[in-house]
Amino acid sequence: MRQSFDEHADSSFGQRHLPRIRQAMAELGLDGFLVPHEDEHQNEYLPAANDRLAWATGFTGSAGAAVILKDKAAVFVDGRYTLQVKDQVDQSLFELRDFVDGGVPAWLESQLARGQKVGFDPRLHSPETLERLRSAAARAGAELLPVQDNPVDRAWGAERPPQPKAPVTPHPLDYAGEASASKRARVGRSLAEAGADAAVITSPASIAWLFNIRGGDVIRSPLPLSQAVLNADGTARLFLDPDKVTPELPAWLGNQVTLEPPEALPAALESLGGKRVLVDPAQSSAWYFEALEGSGAGVLHGQDPCALPRACKNPTEIEGAKHAHQRDGAALTRFLHWVATDAQETLPDEREIVARLEHFREQTGVLKDLSFDTIAGAGSNGAIVHYRPTTHKIRKVEPGELLLVDSGAQYLDGTTDVTRTMAIGEPSAEMRHRYTLVLKGHLALGRARFPQGTTGPMLDALARAPLWAAGLDYDHGTGHGVGSYLGVHEGPQRIAKTDNKVALRPGMIVSNEPGYYKTGAYGIRVENLQFVTEAADVAGGERKMLGFETLTLAPHERALIEVGMLTAEERAQVDAYHARVLTEIGPLVEPDVRAWLEGACAPL
Amino acid sequence: MRQSFDEHADSSFGQRHLPRIRQAMAELGLDGFLVPHEDEHQNEYLPAANDRLAWATGFTGSAGAAVILKDKAAVFVDGRYTLQVKDQVDQSLFELRDFVDGGVPAWLESQLARGQKVGFDPRLHSPETLERLRSAAARAGAELLPVQDNPVDRAWGAERPPQPKAPVTPHPLDYAGEASASKRARVGRSLAEAGADAAVITSPASIAWLFNIRGGDVIRSPLPLSQAVLNADGTARLFLDPDKVTPELPAWLGNQVTLEPPEALPAALESLGGKRVLVDPAQSSAWYFEALEGSGAGVLHGQDPCALPRACKNPTEIEGAKHAHQRDGAALTRFLHWVATDAQETLPDEREIVARLEHFREQTGVLKDLSFDTIAGAGSNGAIVHYRPTTHKIRKVEPGELLLVDSGAQYLDGTTDVTRTMAIGEPSAEMRHRYTLVLKGHLALGRARFPQGTTGPMLDALARAPLWAAGLDYDHGTGHGVGSYLGVHEGPQRIAKTDNKVALRPGMIVSNEPGYYKTGAYGIRVENLQFVTEAADVAGGERKMLGFETLTLAPHERALIEVGMLTAEERAQVDAYHARVLTEIGPLVEPDVRAWLEGACAPL
Repeated sequence: MRQSFDEHADSSFGQRHLPRIRQAMAELGLDGFLVPHEDEHQNEYLPAANDRLAWATGFTGSAGAAVILKDKAAVFVDGRYTLQVKDQVDQSLFELRDFVDGGVPAWLESQLARGQKVGFDPRLHSPETLERLRSAAARAGAELLPVQDNPVDRAWGAERPPQPKAPVTPHPLDYAGEASASKRARVGRSLAEAGADAAVITSPASIAWLFNIRGGDVIRSPLPLSQAVLNADGTARLFLDPDKVTPELPAWLGNQVTLEPPEALPAALESLGGKRVLVDPAQSSAWYFEALEGSGAGVLHGQDPCALPRACKNPTEIEGAKHAHQRDGAALTRFLHWVATDAQETLPDEREIVARLEHFREQTGVLKDLSFDTIAGAGSNGAIVHYRPTTHKIRKVEPGELLLVDSGAQYLDGTTDVTRTMAIGEPSAEMRHRYTLVLKGHLALGRARFPQGTTGPMLDALARAPLWAAGLDYDHGTGHGVGSYLGVHEGPQRIAKTDNKVALRPGMIVSNEPGYYKTGAYGIRVENLQFVTEAADVAGGERKMLGFETLTLAPHERALIEVGMLTAEERAQVDAYHARVLTEIGPLVEPDVRAWLEGACAPL
Repeated sequence: MRQSFDEHADSSFGQRHLPRIRQAMAELGLDGFLVPHEDEHQNEYLPAANDRLAWATGFTGSAGAAVILKDKAAVFVDGRYTLQVKDQVDQSLFELRDFVDGGVPAWLESQLARGQKVGFDPRLHSPETLERLRSAAARAGAELLPVQDNPVDRAWGAERPPQPKAPVTPHPLDYAGEASASKRARVGRSLAEAGADAAVITSPASIAWLFNIRGGDVIRSPLPLSQAVLNADGTARLFLDPDKVTPELPAWLGNQVTLEPPEALPAALESLGGKRVLVDPAQSSAWYFEALEGSGAGVLHGQDPCALPRACKNPTEIEGAKHAHQRDGAALTRFLHWVATDAQETLPDEREIVARLEHFREQTGVLKDLSFDTIAGAGSNGAIVHYRPTTHKIRKVEPGELLLVDSGAQYLDGTTDVTRTMAIGEPSAEMRHRYTLVLKGHLALGRARFPQGTTGPMLDALARAPLWAAGLDYDHGTGHGVGSYLGVHEGPQRIAKTDNKVALRPGMIVSNEPGYYKTGAYGIRVENLQFVTEAADVAGGERKMLGFETLTLAPHERALIEVGMLTAEERAQVDAYHARVLTEIGPLVEPDVRAWLEGACAPL
């Protein structure tokens, strides 16, 4: 089975590792050291070799930081992880703090003494973060020092897992839809238009997209950890561990791309002296900026030039996504059938639920990976937004409870991400009421039509308005971008309350996932993926509008729909979606599943 | 009558005035001069003495700019004014250009020759604008020079109207609701919290609010043109022309406020050397920044510290607004009754329509001013968003047409702003369809409930979604802030597509005015004012929500409502609003008007 239920770190890590880190700090003459969650590639998910924060503290969340001083230390997390961090981190060693209330800079300022030296690894921090930390240390009269020799790595020593060396393979044109030469030429032109001679690309997803390659260095995403320099003329240098280079790769990359080992990167940046070089401060650590400025390059701060073209899927990628979602929808429908029938009697635990869904996806025969660890939240676990079943917290489903399952798959032709919330036994009137409010928001966002230039935050309220009217809300975004056999969380667009200036454009895939969470009781989320299209003209319409086409195909939970709360328009929208699910998924599943699906997709 | 139908400038102005300005430029050794629309106070509406752009070019729109070079000149306007500028500006003298496509900076860069000197009046430009203009000139090898002696003013000479000297009077506590000393103390505390010793306040509206005074220097808004320095301890210096000081004013201001002539301002800024001084770069021209930096002050760029407290009306101001809107609603209802009865037969022109509405408002006996020139757009004139009837374009209403009337009044207890669209004769099915879409958006925004932290742009789509679904939209914002016997357009909040980071807070008054415009045919807009409240709890609700309470009281045009397009919720919302209008306005109007109102407010 792909998904593990174990945690790879625990609260004994601090006791075992902190003294060794402090020893390494002392050897380097440091009074303190900064340990961010981010690695050299600013990944969301980290290879084990780069999860320094977990090794140092025991904390395994997807965002956080630690500061280790000689005689005290602190771990910083955000609101999602305030419960988890208490389980995982030894509070006799680490003060637990929130990123709000000043976060790391305020703590540094309050704890450092005049003249102290705090080390940091410049490959791990963005320039903005570093600037805030530097100012805070300076206010305390202390100093931040870049160190080549990371004391966590030094302490970790031989126990540290090796860097991943998954083979990097071509991503065929049948899936990519546009040759790398064409992508490099048009991104190169955009560089020239921005007045840049070259760009340093450090996002593994952008490198995968630009060169039409895939790797496997990071679990759940087929990313090749690497760096590249793209020139405005479309030529490029790709810095990739030779152990990862598969035999067919050099020919696939062609003669406009030179393949070089990672050790050649510093000299390559040095050689950009005198050129104007674009670097994305949200994607690239301070190390790149310092190296380029040191070489005499003119550094232009700007968005990764691959981010927007990568987000706008081409027709081949959209076709692939449709196939992937049909395949995945059939697997999910088999799972939903199982939950609606057998599981109502056997009352499985979350582990069995995760395993069953993975089994149906594995049966497709073409599953490359999950796109993230399945969230199966039974009853009160469903109310923990970032819940992942691990051995000591696993629950069984019980009659009268809800089961929230958020999952996805990586296929060569596309990445899926879907959430369904199901009733076990008889749901309460409150559950039906709340589910229907969530569904109304999901439907409103799904049927939205909007002019060019509209950003995600401008549409976010459409998904929340029914909940807001009832005095309810959810504390997460409504929609994130999704890659094409790449990361399941992909920018630059985003549908959320928080600021995002990127207009939605045709071909962008986004999730549509409003929710409602009642702490200690149950969680509800309804999530489909959808992509931006040019909307069909309406009679009497005067302006071209954009709209969404739904990719995800699986029935909504009718036992949770309070039909009387839907308008005629909403009811027709659910019925039309269900008719489409039956038409597209019905032929792909077994007769007993199909018979169940017919009922699940009957008009409300 | 208060409203005039004449333009105060025309296309002969360029022919008459441009040579005189060029003569003045030559005397000052300038190759060019920048003429923005803004005046020394960054007002939206200008006193005639400060409308330099109109005097130089003939253009009277509310936004624009001109550049005058030795042998060519250009006028820049935005999309609202592309038709009007052609009527008003002599194209043999001025190139007409749009603010998009690079605007003034791009034109400067393309037209200036190396070594040329272009003058600007530093009192009229914001620091940001100036920086862009400076860079553009520098790219052409030219230079921008600040000039004390504005060549437009020099050329205007004795013909220039005098600066307005309207008396400045106390705004009593019965209307203001909070003593100036209290306002100064709390704004002063906010300065201290922001690390400032003082703030320079240059917005006349902020000065009016802070000192509880009103003036009359600018038509349609009771603004006292003046400047102030507020210290963190709540003391202040107010720079006001002695001719405007009324006898009761010094005692009203009290001994913590020193009253000084405008000539004392430069020395006052000089005396702030060594202090940390907050100035708003969106409200204050470059002159202030240069004066303060020259004096050795530490300049903090930040929002006018009065803007947010001024926007959040206190209970007295909200009570006042309710009274003002009842009074104004009765006047408007008499007008709507007249349109629905007599005017259907007599088919008046826009001038008679404007006069009739002004007459009903004048009859209240307490009208201080209109809050802006009434927009009465009959038929195709209704499709011109910023239309104002002037002699040569006035139309009569005709059967089968729509009449759009956007108007407002200034009363001591509040400022109103309301739009109603009425049918003359029998409206077409298309008109009813479009009106109902606009009304649906207006209703959705009006009933919105939303959590703290929600900004205007996050709600904007609620008002547009019904139009977007039909392939339609409108090219203006949805809601602006409104002052309390102050400007009818007031920040910092705004409901629009464009970026605005100010969260809506209880007490803020905003307009709710979606529209639809069919060029050459008709315009539709429905506008009420509403204020932000803490929404009543809903059964089962878990979070405090904010919402809106409607201030404006006047019936919607039922002849234009296609009832079948409304949901049950929307229909109930219209009926409840109409019931309230009848209850509150019915007792205030004459029997024949009340009889008509009963029909107009009957359930749909």
